[in-house]
Amino acid sequence: MATDHLSTTFAALADPTRRAILARLANGECSVTELAEPFDMSMPAVSKHLRVLERAGLIARGREAQWRPCRIQPGPLKEVADWTERYRAIWEQRLDRLDNYLQKLTAKEKKDGRKRRHK
Amino acid sequence: MATDHLSTTFAALADPTRRAILARLANGECSVTELAEPFDMSMPAVSKHLRVLERAGLIARGREAQWRPCRIQPGPLKEVADWTERYRAIWEQRLDRLDNYLQKLTAKEKKDGRKRRHK
Repeated sequence: MATDHLSTTFAALADPTRRAILARLANGECSVTELAEPFDMSMPAVSKHLRVLERAGLIARGREAQWRPCRIQPGPLKEVADWTERYRAIWEQRLDRLDNYLQKLTAKEKKDGRKRRHK
Repeated sequence: MATDHLSTTFAALADPTRRAILARLANGECSVTELAEPFDMSMPAVSKHLRVLERAGLIARGREAQWRPCRIQPGPLKEVADWTERYRAIWEQRLDRLDNYLQKLTAKEKKDGRKRRHK
């Protein structure tokens, strides 16, 4: 079964090492050796993560024979952001409701505090 | 190995049926039977997807014995949106650059067109 594009992106992002690689590449392109350093991982393990990210279109690799720099491709990240946008109204509504509840709670506590002091 | 929260969320979202379930629940809570209808899926298959969404904290299920309505929990979606935000500058920069390039291309074509007419 062919996996849809957005599912491939989400699956690629479902790993902390791959997200850390993206965070590193957000500061500029670098080689696989440079990427492997902070992770204390073998080169094959890093290469495997890079293949997953490349397949999802989240990174691209240079074609220079000796040095194949990796660079971030932000297109799929924009797609994820656009997809989450349709739910923004829902979480903002919930946060507003929570905010109202807390305000009422604080107001009630102040009122009760005043009552106690007046007794 | 314990999976981090954000990875669990991304993994749960890496499936078109689960994203469709969330889209349905964005319109209001409903029962598992109602959710199963449009997907032409068996109840156990739908229940399996619901368990993945529930584990990721993307949905919650009512505790009423007869009818256990599902409702969306937007917290993890906000986390995904917040995570993508740090890459917004990158994709906006790329789109700006593409825009500049296209504007230059259009300007050049207009200029070349005028030159040809003047010959």
